[in-house]
Amino acid sequence: MQSRSETAGLPREMLESILQRTPFAVQQGIQILSYGAGAVEISLPIAADHKQHHGFVHGAVIGFLADSACAWAAASVCGDVVTAGYHLDLFRPAVSGELVAVGKVISASTRQAVCRAEVYLAAGDGRTLIAAAQATLARV
Amino acid sequence: MQSRSETAGLPREMLESILQRTPFAVQQGIQILSYGAGAVEISLPIAADHKQHHGFVHGAVIGFLADSACAWAAASVCGDVVTAGYHLDLFRPAVSGELVAVGKVISASTRQAVCRAEVYLAAGDGRTLIAAAQATLARV
Amino acid sequence: MQSRSETAGLPREMLESILQRTPFAVQQGIQILSYGAGAVEISLPIAADHKQHHGFVHGAVIGFLADSACAWAAASVCGDVVTAGYHLDLFRPAVSGELVAVGKVISASTRQAVCRAEVYLAAGDGRTLIAAAQATLARV
Amino acid sequence: MQSRSETAGLPREMLESILQRTPFAVQQGIQILSYGAGAVEISLPIAADHKQHHGFVHGAVIGFLADSACAWAAASVCGDVVTAGYHLDLFRPAVSGELVAVGKVISASTRQAVCRAEVYLAAGDGRTLIAAAQATLARV
Repeated sequence: MQSRSETAGLPREMLESILQRTPFAVQQGIQILSYGAGAVEISLPIAADHKQHHGFVHGAVIGFLADSACAWAAASVCGDVVTAGYHLDLFRPAVSGELVAVGKVISASTRQAVCRAEVYLAAGDGRTLIAAAQATLARV
Repeated sequence: MQSRSETAGLPREMLESILQRTPFAVQQGIQILSYGAGAVEISLPIAADHKQHHGFVHGAVIGFLADSACAWAAASVCGDVVTAGYHLDLFRPAVSGELVAVGKVISASTRQAVCRAEVYLAAGDGRTLIAAAQATLARV
Repeated sequence: MQSRSETAGLPREMLESILQRTPFAVQQGIQILSYGAGAVEISLPIAADHKQHHGFVHGAVIGFLADSACAWAAASVCGDVVTAGYHLDLFRPAVSGELVAVGKVISASTRQAVCRAEVYLAAGDGRTLIAAAQATLARV
Repeated sequence: MQSRSETAGLPREMLESILQRTPFAVQQGIQILSYGAGAVEISLPIAADHKQHHGFVHGAVIGFLADSACAWAAASVCGDVVTAGYHLDLFRPAVSGELVAVGKVISASTRQAVCRAEVYLAAGDGRTLIAAAQATLARV
């Protein structure tokens, strides 16, 4: 049997506090839209500093969103985690608007969680899927 | 038969110029150590803005280095490319010093290149392997 | 605009015929449960030849199911495809019963499709998720 | 401090014995060419049962070789392991000759090893790289 400290998820206030103490996340401008029970939704308004030379959002920024969505979905179930690895596929470029990433835990064990994320470009009314990831998060 | 424009690699001056027009790369502080013939070496001095809440370099920054090393190795053979996808495994945290990423083309076709990168923490005399990636880059 | 030959999916009869001419799939004993419109469900009754030395189904057999589910989901939208790459995470061992894989297209372009698959162990009433994959399939 | 049983690699005789008790590996016809100190080389003579409908070796067979090369490289350092996940990129079709896979440990911790494999088609004098993988193996 596992102790509560091994299995309890991170409360939202604690995640918000961690986010404030994560300089890279503050620099990029990430926000939490919803959080809890193995699922999260986060957003990032596209800014000039997110771009590469074609004027598209840099793949690393999309990777950052996908990784964060997976990590926080895992944290909501497992508590503090670190990313052990992820696979990211990029489908379409993003130029302007807002990026939204949705993360979900698909399997959790005593050692780690496997999560999936989809990254959308939200512009005007609609959302377009631009990237998808599968990640492994290790419990700290 | 392919035309020269389809197969020629990007000259180093052109990559340096692209790098200057890539706001995300300028913001992060990436530098090219060596470039050419399907292989590159790049570096990033670790700064406060690269960190997450444990004081470690954020996985997204390491992903950025690995992706860039793969993309530029591909560019040295294929010309302009975009990242179609990558898989990244993270082994060890990095706190201070310099990150160095080594990228290499392992297979190139008329449509895409597959590359590998290793990311090292360089501190004092030695280099410690902290992450490894395999990426697919599509010709533009 | 794309011509019909570039965009039409493979009819189910044609997939069944391809399956009959795929010696590895016949040897393993794979079956199609449902097929069409970017989604498939396939199954494999676990047999002694599928096992490794712990008595578990070999990871390669699970990879085979995940890859097939992704490839056929893509074929239902894109026509004939080949696997360009996939990432597979394995969660739990499977000993006896039937394996069921569900594949779905999440993005399709003129060059390729990205798909996801989940592999379940079906034993008695329930299904347990044992593996998940994300794959890229190139149009032939 | 770890006990010897946690850290010692699997002796070659034990791997050969495990291989004999792995029905899927026996069915496919895999052989060990060299083994030890975090590196292995294995081979598979291409047979009719390995093929898909284009007459090419099935991607799952190539995945099996890549996964085995990674798992056994890990076993030579860590002892008994199970595959936690892998990413595979497929470059070129293989029709006849022999497949050779080379596996290497690139990082090992107390919990897992990360390995890489290259799969070659050996026909006549030369070897052609046809696939590459990066895998995570968990200690049992």
